[in-house]
Amino acid sequence: MRAPAFLATHATTVEQALCAMLDARASVVPERLLSAMRYSLMAGGKRVRPALLLESYLACGGKDHAAAMPAMLAIECIHTYSLIHDDLPCMDDDDLRRGKPTCHRRFDEATAVLAADALQALAFELLAEAELDPELRLELIRKLALAAGCQGMVGGQMMDMQAEHDSDIDMLMVERIHLHKTGALLCWCCEAGAMLAGAGTAELEASSRYGKAVGLLFQVADDILDATASSAALGKSAGKDAAQNKATYVSVLGLIEARALAAEMLELATSACSELGEGGNHLKTLAQYIMERGQ
Amino acid sequence: MRAPAFLATHATTVEQALCAMLDARASVVPERLLSAMRYSLMAGGKRVRPALLLESYLACGGKDHAAAMPAMLAIECIHTYSLIHDDLPCMDDDDLRRGKPTCHRRFDEATAVLAADALQALAFELLAEAELDPELRLELIRKLALAAGCQGMVGGQMMDMQAEHDSDIDMLMVERIHLHKTGALLCWCCEAGAMLAGAGTAELEASSRYGKAVGLLFQVADDILDATASSAALGKSAGKDAAQNKATYVSVLGLIEARALAAEMLELATSACSELGEGGNHLKTLAQYIMERGQ
Repeated sequence: MRAPAFLATHATTVEQALCAMLDARASVVPERLLSAMRYSLMAGGKRVRPALLLESYLACGGKDHAAAMPAMLAIECIHTYSLIHDDLPCMDDDDLRRGKPTCHRRFDEATAVLAADALQALAFELLAEAELDPELRLELIRKLALAAGCQGMVGGQMMDMQAEHDSDIDMLMVERIHLHKTGALLCWCCEAGAMLAGAGTAELEASSRYGKAVGLLFQVADDILDATASSAALGKSAGKDAAQNKATYVSVLGLIEARALAAEMLELATSACSELGEGGNHLKTLAQYIMERGQ
Repeated sequence: MRAPAFLATHATTVEQALCAMLDARASVVPERLLSAMRYSLMAGGKRVRPALLLESYLACGGKDHAAAMPAMLAIECIHTYSLIHDDLPCMDDDDLRRGKPTCHRRFDEATAVLAADALQALAFELLAEAELDPELRLELIRKLALAAGCQGMVGGQMMDMQAEHDSDIDMLMVERIHLHKTGALLCWCCEAGAMLAGAGTAELEASSRYGKAVGLLFQVADDILDATASSAALGKSAGKDAAQNKATYVSVLGLIEARALAAEMLELATSACSELGEGGNHLKTLAQYIMERGQ
Protein backbone atom coordinates (compact mmCIF):
# COMPACT_ATOMS: atom_id res chain seq x y z
CA MET A 1 0.00 0.00 0.00
CA ARG A 2 1.33 3.39 -0.96
CA ALA A 3 1.07 6.19 1.55
CA PRO A 4 -2.35 7.85 1.23
CA ALA A 5 -2.21 11.21 -0.56
CA PHE A 6 -3.65 13.11 2.40
CA LEU A 7 -0.72 11.92 4.55
CA ALA A 8 1.76 13.56 2.18
CA THR A 9 -0.34 16.73 2.09
CA HIS A 10 -0.42 16.95 5.87
CA ALA A 11 3.33 16.23 6.03
CA THR A 12 4.04 19.16 3.72
CA THR A 13 1.92 21.49 5.83
CA VAL A 14 3.56 20.31 9.06
CA GLU A 15 7.05 20.70 7.63
CA GLN A 16 6.35 24.23 6.47
CA ALA A 17 5.03 25.12 9.91
CA LEU A 18 8.00 23.47 11.65
CA CYS A 19 10.35 25.43 9.43
CA ALA A 20 8.62 28.74 10.13
CA MET A 21 8.59 28.00 13.86
CA LEU A 22 12.34 27.35 13.85
CA ASP A 23 13.08 30.37 11.64
CA ALA A 24 11.22 32.59 14.11
CA ARG A 25 13.73 31.53 16.78
CA ALA A 26 16.89 32.04 14.71
CA SER A 27 17.91 35.28 16.41
CA VAL A 28 17.48 34.01 19.98
CA VAL A 29 18.92 30.48 19.87
CA PRO A 30 22.62 29.57 19.47
CA GLU A 31 23.17 28.64 15.85
CA ARG A 32 24.63 25.17 16.37
CA LEU A 33 21.85 24.22 18.78
CA LEU A 34 19.14 25.37 16.40
CA SER A 35 20.90 23.58 13.52
CA ALA A 36 20.84 20.31 15.44
CA MET A 37 17.19 20.77 16.38
CA ARG A 38 16.36 21.59 12.76
CA TYR A 39 18.44 18.70 11.39
CA SER A 40 16.48 16.15 13.38
CA LEU A 41 13.06 17.81 13.17
CA MET A 42 13.36 18.14 9.38
CA ALA A 43 14.89 14.70 8.74
CA GLY A 44 11.78 13.47 6.99
CA GLY A 45 9.52 10.72 8.16
CA LYS A 46 5.87 10.31 7.31
CA ARG A 47 4.66 12.67 10.08
CA VAL A 48 2.18 10.00 11.14
CA ARG A 49 1.62 11.54 14.60
CA PRO A 50 0.47 14.98 13.49
CA ALA A 51 -1.63 13.30 10.77
CA LEU A 52 -3.36 11.15 13.39
CA LEU A 53 -3.99 14.26 15.44
CA LEU A 54 -5.38 16.28 12.54
CA GLU A 55 -7.53 13.44 11.21
CA SER A 56 -8.96 12.78 14.68
CA TYR A 57 -9.71 16.49 14.91
CA LEU A 58 -11.46 16.50 11.54
CA ALA A 59 -13.30 13.25 12.29
CA CYS A 60 -14.72 14.80 15.45
CA GLY A 61 -16.00 17.83 13.56
CA GLY A 62 -12.99 20.18 13.82
CA LYS A 63 -12.88 22.66 10.95
CA ASP A 64 -10.00 25.09 11.46
CA HIS A 65 -6.72 23.32 10.68
CA ALA A 66 -4.74 26.19 12.25
CA ALA A 67 -6.21 25.46 15.69
CA ALA A 68 -4.70 21.96 15.63
CA MET A 69 -1.27 23.08 14.39
CA PRO A 70 0.47 23.93 17.71
CA ALA A 71 -0.37 20.47 19.05
CA MET A 72 0.80 18.89 15.76
CA LEU A 73 4.15 20.67 16.05
CA ALA A 74 4.43 19.86 19.75
CA ILE A 75 4.07 16.13 19.14
CA GLU A 76 6.76 16.22 16.44
CA CYS A 77 9.08 17.97 18.93
CA ILE A 78 8.50 15.29 21.56
CA HIS A 79 8.80 12.44 19.06
CA THR A 80 12.00 13.88 17.59
CA TYR A 81 13.59 14.44 21.00
CA SER A 82 12.89 10.81 21.88
CA LEU A 83 14.50 9.58 18.65
CA ILE A 84 17.65 11.67 19.26
CA HIS A 85 18.10 10.28 22.79
CA ASP A 86 17.18 6.75 21.65
CA ASP A 87 19.95 6.83 19.06
CA LEU A 88 22.69 7.86 21.53
CA PRO A 89 25.63 5.49 22.05
CA CYS A 90 24.47 4.72 25.60
CA MET A 91 21.00 3.79 24.32
CA ASP A 92 20.49 2.08 20.92
CA ASP A 93 23.80 3.35 19.50
CA ASP A 94 22.45 3.96 16.02
CA ASP A 95 24.46 5.64 13.28
CA LEU A 96 21.60 6.01 10.84
CA ARG A 97 18.06 7.30 11.09
CA ARG A 98 15.89 7.52 7.99
CA GLY A 99 18.99 6.94 5.88
CA LYS A 100 20.91 9.88 7.33
CA PRO A 101 23.50 10.13 10.10
CA THR A 102 21.84 10.35 13.52
CA CYS A 103 22.04 13.68 15.33
CA HIS A 104 25.03 12.72 17.49
CA ARG A 105 26.89 11.42 14.43
CA ARG A 106 26.16 14.53 12.37
CA PHE A 107 26.96 16.91 15.28
CA ASP A 108 28.34 15.44 18.51
CA GLU A 109 26.88 13.68 21.54
CA ALA A 110 26.66 16.72 23.80
CA THR A 111 24.91 18.76 21.10
CA ALA A 112 22.49 15.89 20.47
CA VAL A 113 21.63 15.60 24.17
CA LEU A 114 20.98 19.36 24.36
CA ALA A 115 19.04 19.59 21.09
CA ALA A 116 16.68 16.90 22.34
CA ASP A 117 16.31 18.54 25.75
CA ALA A 118 15.45 21.80 24.02
CA LEU A 119 12.88 20.08 21.79
CA GLN A 120 11.09 18.69 24.82
CA ALA A 121 10.81 22.17 26.38
CA LEU A 122 9.73 23.58 23.02
CA ALA A 123 6.76 21.21 22.85
CA PHE A 124 5.38 22.61 26.10
CA GLU A 125 6.18 26.17 25.03
CA LEU A 126 4.18 25.71 21.81
CA LEU A 127 1.16 24.35 23.65
CA ALA A 128 1.31 26.98 26.40
CA GLU A 129 1.30 29.84 23.90
CA ALA A 130 -1.29 28.39 21.50
CA GLU A 131 -4.36 30.51 20.85
CA LEU A 132 -6.78 28.11 22.48
CA ASP A 133 -9.06 28.08 25.47
CA PRO A 134 -6.84 28.07 28.62
CA GLU A 135 -8.45 24.97 30.16
CA LEU A 136 -8.01 23.07 26.90
CA ARG A 137 -4.34 24.09 26.64
CA LEU A 138 -3.72 22.95 30.21
CA GLU A 139 -5.38 19.61 29.60
CA LEU A 140 -3.31 19.06 26.45
CA ILE A 141 -0.13 19.95 28.38
CA ARG A 142 -1.03 17.76 31.34
CA LYS A 143 -1.84 14.76 29.18
CA LEU A 144 1.27 15.27 27.02
CA ALA A 145 3.52 15.46 30.09
CA LEU A 146 1.98 12.21 31.36
CA ALA A 147 2.21 10.49 27.95
CA ALA A 148 5.83 11.58 27.41
CA GLY A 149 7.19 11.17 30.94
CA CYS A 150 7.93 8.46 33.48
CA GLN A 151 4.37 7.08 33.36
CA GLY A 152 4.39 7.04 29.57
CA MET A 153 7.06 7.01 26.88
CA VAL A 154 10.14 7.35 29.09
CA GLY A 155 8.78 4.66 31.41
CA GLY A 156 8.30 2.40 28.38
CA GLN A 157 11.87 3.00 27.20
CA MET A 158 13.12 2.02 30.63
CA MET A 159 11.06 -1.19 30.59
CA ASP A 160 12.33 -1.92 27.09
CA MET A 161 15.97 -1.56 28.16
CA GLN A 162 15.48 -3.76 31.18
CA ALA A 163 13.76 -6.41 29.10
CA GLU A 164 16.99 -6.82 27.10
CA HIS A 165 18.49 -8.50 30.15
CA ASP A 166 15.47 -10.68 30.80
CA SER A 167 15.23 -14.01 28.99
CA ASP A 168 11.70 -14.64 30.19
CA ILE A 169 9.64 -11.92 28.51
CA ASP A 170 6.06 -12.84 27.67
CA MET A 171 3.44 -11.32 25.44
CA LEU A 172 1.88 -9.28 28.29
CA MET A 173 5.19 -7.65 29.08
CA VAL A 174 5.82 -6.79 25.43
CA GLU A 175 2.37 -5.22 25.28
CA ARG A 176 3.01 -3.29 28.50
CA ILE A 177 6.30 -1.94 27.15
CA HIS A 178 4.76 -0.76 23.92
CA LEU A 179 1.58 0.68 25.38
CA HIS A 180 3.98 2.99 27.22
CA LYS A 181 6.85 3.42 24.80
CA THR A 182 4.95 4.07 21.56
CA GLY A 183 1.28 3.82 22.48
CA ALA A 184 1.02 6.67 24.97
CA LEU A 185 2.08 9.37 22.50
CA LEU A 186 0.03 7.96 19.61
CA CYS A 187 -2.96 7.81 21.91
CA TRP A 188 -2.33 11.42 22.99
CA CYS A 189 -2.48 12.46 19.32
CA CYS A 190 -5.91 10.93 18.82
CA GLU A 191 -7.28 12.23 22.11
CA ALA A 192 -5.80 15.69 21.53
CA GLY A 193 -7.44 15.86 18.10
CA ALA A 194 -10.81 14.97 19.62
CA MET A 195 -10.37 17.44 22.50
CA LEU A 196 -9.39 20.23 20.12
CA ALA A 197 -12.59 19.57 18.15
CA GLY A 198 -14.64 19.84 21.34
CA ALA A 199 -15.72 16.20 21.01
CA GLY A 200 -18.32 14.73 23.36
CA THR A 201 -17.66 11.75 25.65
CA ALA A 202 -18.57 9.08 23.09
CA GLU A 203 -16.33 10.51 20.36
CA LEU A 204 -13.50 11.12 22.80
CA GLU A 205 -13.77 7.55 23.96
CA ALA A 206 -13.81 6.19 20.39
CA SER A 207 -10.75 8.31 19.50
CA SER A 208 -8.95 7.04 22.55
CA ARG A 209 -9.74 3.41 21.68
CA TYR A 210 -8.61 4.00 18.11
CA GLY A 211 -5.37 5.56 19.43
CA LYS A 212 -4.65 2.61 21.68
CA ALA A 213 -5.25 0.06 18.92
CA VAL A 214 -3.18 2.03 16.42
CA GLY A 215 -0.40 2.36 19.01
CA LEU A 216 -0.08 -1.39 19.33
CA LEU A 217 -0.58 -1.91 15.61
CA PHE A 218 2.23 0.54 14.96
CA GLN A 219 4.61 -1.41 17.15
CA VAL A 220 3.67 -4.86 15.83
CA ALA A 221 4.14 -3.57 12.30
CA ASP A 222 7.48 -2.04 13.28
CA ASP A 223 8.68 -5.30 14.82
CA ILE A 224 7.62 -7.23 11.74
CA LEU A 225 9.39 -4.68 9.55
CA ASP A 226 12.61 -4.90 11.57
CA ALA A 227 12.56 -8.70 11.31
CA THR A 228 11.84 -8.85 7.58
CA ALA A 229 13.09 -5.74 5.75
CA SER A 230 16.55 -4.81 4.55
CA SER A 231 18.56 -1.92 5.99
CA ALA A 232 18.14 -0.08 2.70
CA ALA A 233 14.35 -0.30 2.90
CA LEU A 234 14.38 0.73 6.57
CA GLY A 235 16.82 3.61 6.25
CA LYS A 236 18.42 2.29 9.43
CA SER A 237 20.21 -0.87 10.50
CA ALA A 238 17.86 -3.85 10.08
CA GLY A 239 17.66 -6.84 12.41
CA LYS A 240 18.88 -4.74 15.35
CA ASP A 241 16.05 -5.93 17.56
CA ALA A 242 17.21 -9.54 17.44
CA ALA A 243 20.87 -8.52 17.71
CA GLN A 244 20.11 -6.50 20.87
CA ASN A 245 17.81 -9.17 22.34
CA LYS A 246 14.93 -6.69 22.23
CA ALA A 247 11.56 -7.86 23.43
CA THR A 248 9.41 -7.69 20.29
CA TYR A 249 6.11 -9.13 19.17
CA VAL A 250 8.01 -11.20 16.65
CA SER A 251 10.37 -12.63 19.28
CA VAL A 252 7.56 -13.67 21.65
CA LEU A 253 4.88 -14.63 19.10
CA GLY A 254 6.74 -15.53 15.92
CA LEU A 255 6.03 -13.88 12.58
CA ILE A 256 2.72 -15.57 11.78
CA GLU A 257 1.11 -14.84 15.15
CA ALA A 258 2.47 -11.30 15.09
CA ARG A 259 0.73 -10.76 11.75
CA ALA A 260 -2.50 -12.17 13.16
CA LEU A 261 -2.25 -9.77 16.11
CA ALA A 262 -1.74 -6.86 13.72
CA ALA A 263 -4.91 -7.89 11.88
CA GLU A 264 -6.80 -7.98 15.16
CA MET A 265 -5.57 -4.49 16.13
CA LEU A 266 -6.56 -3.19 12.70
CA GLU A 267 -10.04 -4.59 13.25
CA LEU A 268 -10.29 -2.82 16.64
CA ALA A 269 -9.04 0.45 15.17
CA THR A 270 -11.45 0.22 12.23
CA SER A 271 -14.42 -0.47 14.44
CA ALA A 272 -13.57 2.56 16.60
CA CYS A 273 -13.44 4.69 13.44
CA SER A 274 -16.89 3.54 12.42
CA GLU A 275 -18.28 5.18 15.55
CA LEU A 276 -16.96 8.49 14.26
CA GLY A 277 -19.10 8.20 11.12
CA GLU A 278 -17.84 9.13 7.66
CA GLY A 279 -15.30 11.50 9.15
CA GLY A 280 -13.42 8.43 10.38
CA ASN A 281 -12.60 7.17 6.89
CA HIS A 282 -9.18 8.77 6.75
CA LEU A 283 -8.38 7.29 10.16
CA LYS A 284 -9.32 3.86 8.79
CA THR A 285 -7.00 4.40 5.85
CA LEU A 286 -4.20 5.48 8.20
CA ALA A 287 -4.58 2.35 10.30
CA GLN A 288 -4.52 0.23 7.14
CA TYR A 289 -1.40 2.01 5.96
CA ILE A 290 0.34 1.57 9.33
CA MET A 291 -0.47 -2.14 9.21
CA GLU A 292 0.79 -2.67 5.67
CA ARG A 293 4.16 -1.07 6.36
CA GLY A 294 4.93 -4.27 8.22
CA GLN A 295 3.71 -6.79 5.66
CA MET B 1 28.31 33.06 56.64
CA ARG B 2 26.28 30.06 57.69
CA ALA B 3 23.18 29.18 55.72
CA PRO B 4 20.24 31.19 57.08
CA ALA B 5 17.87 29.10 59.23
CA PHE B 6 14.86 29.75 56.99
CA LEU B 7 16.74 28.19 54.07
CA ALA B 8 17.11 24.92 55.96
CA THR B 9 13.45 25.04 57.00
CA HIS B 10 12.30 25.53 53.40
CA ALA B 11 14.66 22.76 52.25
CA THR B 12 13.07 20.31 54.69
CA THR B 13 9.58 21.21 53.52
CA VAL B 14 10.58 20.89 49.86
CA GLU B 15 12.25 17.53 50.43
CA GLN B 16 9.20 16.15 52.21
CA ALA B 17 7.00 17.30 49.34
CA LEU B 18 9.38 15.86 46.72
CA CYS B 19 9.38 12.56 48.56
CA ALA B 20 5.59 12.43 48.78
CA MET B 21 5.31 13.35 45.10
CA LEU B 22 7.65 10.50 44.11
CA ASP B 23 5.95 8.01 46.47
CA ALA B 24 2.61 8.81 44.86
CA ARG B 25 4.04 7.59 41.54
CA ALA B 26 5.62 4.38 42.83
CA SER B 27 2.95 2.08 41.40
CA VAL B 28 2.95 3.60 37.91
CA VAL B 29 6.65 4.15 37.17
CA PRO B 30 9.28 1.45 36.53
CA GLU B 31 11.21 0.95 39.75
CA ARG B 32 14.70 1.58 38.43
CA LEU B 33 13.62 4.75 36.64
CA LEU B 34 11.92 6.13 39.75
CA SER B 35 14.97 5.16 41.84
CA ALA B 36 17.26 7.16 39.57
CA MET B 37 14.89 10.15 39.60
CA ARG B 38 14.68 9.92 43.40
CA TYR B 39 18.45 9.46 43.81
CA SER B 40 19.20 12.71 42.01
CA LEU B 41 16.22 14.71 43.26
CA MET B 42 16.99 13.76 46.88
CA ALA B 43 20.79 14.14 46.66
CA GLY B 44 20.75 17.16 48.93
CA GLY B 45 21.74 20.64 47.95
CA LYS B 46 20.56 23.83 49.60
CA ARG B 47 17.31 24.04 47.55
CA VAL B 48 18.15 27.65 46.76
CA ARG B 49 15.76 27.82 43.80
CA PRO B 50 12.56 26.86 45.64
CA ALA B 51 13.65 29.12 48.51
CA LEU B 52 14.01 32.06 46.11
CA LEU B 53 10.58 31.27 44.71
CA LEU B 54 8.91 31.01 48.12
CA GLU B 55 10.61 34.10 49.53
CA SER B 56 9.66 36.14 46.45
CA TYR B 57 6.11 34.89 46.91
CA LEU B 58 6.08 35.92 50.59
CA ALA B 59 7.80 39.25 49.88
CA CYS B 60 5.03 40.09 47.39
CA GLY B 61 2.32 39.32 49.92
CA GLY B 62 1.69 35.63 49.26
CA LYS B 63 0.34 33.83 52.34
CA ASP B 64 -0.47 30.23 51.49
CA HIS B 65 2.77 28.25 51.19
CA ALA B 66 0.91 25.34 49.61
CA ALA B 67 -0.01 27.44 46.57
CA ALA B 68 3.68 27.93 45.76
CA MET B 69 4.66 24.29 46.29
CA PRO B 70 3.96 22.84 42.80
CA ALA B 71 6.18 25.53 41.24
CA MET B 72 8.86 24.89 43.88
CA LEU B 73 8.85 21.18 43.03
CA ALA B 74 8.80 21.88 39.31
CA ILE B 75 11.94 24.02 39.47
CA GLU B 76 13.77 21.32 41.42
CA CYS B 77 12.80 18.80 38.72
CA ILE B 78 14.16 21.05 35.96
CA HIS B 79 17.32 21.91 37.90
CA THR B 80 17.97 18.24 38.73
CA TYR B 81 17.44 17.09 35.15
CA SER B 82 19.96 19.68 33.97
CA LEU B 83 22.54 18.49 36.52
CA ILE B 84 22.13 14.85 35.45
CA HIS B 85 22.66 15.67 31.77
CA ASP B 86 25.49 18.11 32.60
CA ASP B 87 27.36 15.36 34.42
CA LEU B 88 27.20 12.85 31.53
CA PRO B 89 30.47 11.65 30.00
CA CYS B 90 29.71 13.53 26.76
CA MET B 91 29.17 16.76 28.71
CA ASP B 92 31.19 17.60 31.85
CA ASP B 93 32.01 13.95 32.60
CA ASP B 94 31.71 14.29 36.36
CA ASP B 95 31.91 11.33 38.73
CA LEU B 96 30.83 13.21 41.83
CA ARG B 97 27.98 15.59 42.60
CA ARG B 98 27.53 16.88 46.14
CA GLY B 99 29.98 14.26 47.36
CA LYS B 100 28.04 11.33 45.89
CA PRO B 101 28.41 9.41 42.64
CA THR B 102 26.63 11.17 39.78
CA CYS B 103 23.46 9.55 38.44
CA HIS B 104 25.17 7.81 35.50
CA ARG B 105 27.90 6.47 37.84
CA ARG B 106 25.41 5.20 40.41
CA PHE B 107 23.09 3.73 37.75
CA ASP B 108 24.20 3.78 34.11
CA GLU B 109 24.26 6.33 31.31
CA ALA B 110 21.03 5.25 29.63
CA THR B 111 19.13 5.31 32.92
CA ALA B 112 20.55 8.74 33.71
CA VAL B 113 19.49 10.13 30.32
CA LEU B 114 15.97 8.76 30.82
CA ALA B 115 15.63 9.85 34.45
CA ALA B 116 16.50 13.41 33.46
CA ASP B 117 14.10 13.34 30.49
CA ALA B 118 11.35 12.15 32.83
CA LEU B 119 12.12 14.90 35.34
CA GLN B 120 11.72 17.55 32.66
CA ALA B 121 8.28 16.21 31.72
CA LEU B 122 7.37 15.94 35.41
CA ALA B 123 8.02 19.65 35.96
CA PHE B 124 5.39 20.53 33.37
CA GLU B 125 3.01 17.88 34.69
CA LEU B 126 3.22 19.36 38.21
CA LEU B 127 2.50 22.88 36.98
CA ALA B 128 -0.31 21.77 34.67
CA GLU B 129 -2.14 19.96 37.46
CA ALA B 130 -1.56 22.58 40.19
CA GLU B 131 -4.66 23.99 41.85
CA LEU B 132 -4.15 27.50 40.53
CA ASP B 133 -5.95 29.86 38.21
CA PRO B 134 -5.65 28.42 34.65
CA GLU B 135 -4.16 31.61 33.15
CA LEU B 136 -1.55 31.74 35.90
CA ARG B 137 -0.62 28.08 35.40
CA LEU B 138 -0.23 28.64 31.68
CA GLU B 139 1.98 31.68 32.20
CA LEU B 140 4.18 29.75 34.64
CA ILE B 141 4.46 26.89 32.14
CA ARG B 142 5.18 29.18 29.19
CA LYS B 143 7.86 31.10 31.06
CA LEU B 144 9.42 27.92 32.45
CA ALA B 145 9.58 26.35 28.99
CA LEU B 146 11.30 29.50 27.70
CA ALA B 147 13.68 29.70 30.67
CA ALA B 148 14.61 26.02 30.48
CA GLY B 149 14.76 25.57 26.71
CA CYS B 150 16.78 26.70 23.70
CA GLN B 151 16.30 30.39 24.47
CA GLY B 152 17.26 29.87 28.13
CA MET B 153 19.19 27.25 30.05
CA VAL B 154 19.84 24.77 27.23
CA GLY B 155 20.91 27.64 24.97
CA GLY B 156 23.34 28.78 27.69
CA GLN B 157 24.79 25.29 28.03
CA MET B 158 25.39 25.20 24.29
CA MET B 159 27.15 28.61 24.39
CA ASP B 160 29.20 27.42 27.35
CA MET B 161 30.36 24.30 25.50
CA GLN B 162 31.27 26.25 22.40
CA ALA B 163 33.21 28.79 24.45
CA GLU B 164 35.55 25.98 25.53
CA HIS B 165 36.96 25.98 22.00
CA ASP B 166 37.22 29.76 21.81
CA SER B 167 40.36 31.41 23.15
CA ASP B 168 38.95 34.89 22.77
CA ILE B 169 36.07 35.00 25.26
CA ASP B 170 35.34 38.38 26.81
CA MET B 171 33.33 39.49 29.79
CA LEU B 172 30.19 40.19 27.71
CA MET B 173 30.19 36.65 26.36
CA VAL B 174 30.64 35.18 29.86
CA GLU B 175 27.70 37.27 31.03
CA ARG B 176 25.62 36.20 28.06
CA ILE B 177 26.35 32.53 28.75
CA HIS B 178 25.38 32.77 32.39
CA LEU B 179 22.31 34.93 31.95
CA HIS B 180 21.06 31.98 29.91
CA LYS B 181 22.64 28.98 31.62
CA THR B 182 21.96 29.81 35.28
CA GLY B 183 20.21 33.15 35.26
CA ALA B 184 17.09 32.28 33.31
CA LEU B 185 15.89 29.64 35.79
CA LEU B 186 16.80 31.69 38.87
CA CYS B 187 14.96 34.62 37.36
CA TRP B 188 11.95 32.40 36.68
CA CYS B 189 11.88 31.47 40.38
CA CYS B 190 11.67 35.09 41.47
CA GLU B 191 9.12 36.03 38.81
CA ALA B 192 7.05 32.92 39.51
CA GLY B 193 6.95 33.76 43.23
CA ALA B 194 5.74 37.27 42.46
CA MET B 195 3.17 36.02 39.92
CA LEU B 196 1.83 33.44 42.37
CA ALA B 197 1.35 36.22 44.94
CA GLY B 198 -0.61 38.26 42.40
CA ALA B 199 2.03 41.00 42.46
CA GLY B 200 1.48 44.28 40.64
CA THR B 201 3.75 45.57 37.88
CA ALA B 202 6.22 47.36 40.19
CA GLU B 203 6.71 44.34 42.47
CA LEU B 204 6.95 41.97 39.52
CA GLU B 205 9.58 44.19 37.98
CA ALA B 206 11.58 44.42 41.23
CA SER B 207 11.44 40.62 41.65
CA SER B 208 12.61 40.20 38.10
CA ARG B 209 15.56 42.60 38.63
CA TYR B 210 16.43 40.83 41.85
CA GLY B 211 16.34 37.48 40.05
CA LYS B 212 18.62 38.68 37.28
CA ALA B 213 21.18 40.12 39.72
CA VAL B 214 21.09 37.01 41.89
CA GLY B 215 21.47 34.84 38.78
CA LEU B 216 24.75 36.54 37.87
CA LEU B 217 25.86 36.72 41.50
CA PHE B 218 25.26 33.00 41.79
CA GLN B 219 27.51 32.28 38.84
CA VAL B 220 30.31 34.66 39.84
CA ALA B 221 30.31 33.11 43.32
CA ASP B 222 30.33 29.63 41.77
CA ASP B 223 33.29 30.50 39.53
CA ILE B 224 35.20 31.96 42.50
CA LEU B 225 34.40 28.85 44.53
CA ASP B 226 35.62 26.53 41.77
CA ALA B 227 38.86 28.48 41.49
CA THR B 228 39.56 28.63 45.23
CA ALA B 229 37.93 25.73 47.11
CA SER B 230 39.11 22.14 47.54
CA SER B 231 37.27 19.15 46.09
CA ALA B 232 36.30 18.11 49.62
CA ALA B 233 34.65 21.46 50.30
CA LEU B 234 32.91 21.43 46.91
CA GLY B 235 31.69 17.86 47.03
CA LYS B 236 32.80 17.60 43.41
CA SER B 237 36.05 17.87 41.49
CA ALA B 238 37.57 21.33 42.05
CA GLY B 239 39.46 23.36 39.47
CA LYS B 240 37.55 21.66 36.64
CA ASP B 241 36.67 24.97 35.03
CA ALA B 242 40.32 25.83 34.38
CA ALA B 243 41.12 22.25 33.37
CA GLN B 244 38.28 22.29 30.82
CA ASN B 245 39.11 25.80 29.58
CA LYS B 246 35.67 26.96 30.74
CA ALA B 247 34.76 30.60 30.23
CA THR B 248 34.35 31.87 33.79
CA TYR B 249 34.28 35.27 35.45
CA VAL B 250 37.56 34.36 37.14
CA SER B 251 39.23 33.47 33.84
CA VAL B 252 38.24 36.71 32.10
CA LEU B 253 38.38 39.10 35.07
CA GLY B 254 40.79 37.56 37.56
CA LEU B 255 39.86 36.83 41.16
CA ILE B 256 39.92 40.40 42.50
CA GLU B 257 37.72 41.85 39.77
CA ALA B 258 35.37 38.88 39.97
CA ARG B 259 34.90 39.60 43.66
CA ALA B 260 34.22 43.26 42.90
CA LEU B 261 31.60 42.24 40.33
CA ALA B 262 29.95 39.98 42.91
CA ALA B 263 29.75 42.93 45.32
CA GLU B 264 28.16 45.03 42.59
CA MET B 265 25.56 42.35 41.85
CA LEU B 266 24.81 42.03 45.55
CA GLU B 267 24.21 45.77 45.68
CA LEU B 268 21.79 45.55 42.73
CA ALA B 269 19.96 42.61 44.30
CA THR B 270 19.72 44.35 47.66
CA SER B 271 18.36 47.53 46.16
CA ALA B 272 15.68 45.57 44.30
CA CYS B 273 14.71 43.91 47.61
CA SER B 274 14.28 47.28 49.27
CA GLU B 275 11.49 48.06 46.82
CA LEU B 276 9.62 45.06 48.19
CA GLY B 277 9.59 46.58 51.72
CA GLU B 278 10.25 44.55 54.84
CA GLY B 279 9.07 41.41 53.13
CA GLY B 280 12.27 41.55 51.07
CA ASN B 281 14.58 41.01 54.05
CA HIS B 282 14.89 37.27 53.57
CA LEU B 283 15.68 37.84 49.91
CA LYS B 284 18.50 40.19 50.96
CA THR B 285 19.84 37.54 53.31
CA LEU B 286 19.67 34.95 50.51
CA ALA B 287 21.65 37.18 48.15
CA GLN B 288 24.24 37.77 50.88
CA TYR B 289 24.47 34.04 51.49
CA ILE B 290 24.86 33.27 47.79
CA MET B 291 27.66 35.84 47.58
CA GLU B 292 29.56 34.57 50.59
CA ARG B 293 29.60 30.98 49.37
CA GLY B 294 32.24 32.21 46.95
CA GLN B 295 34.41 34.19 49.34
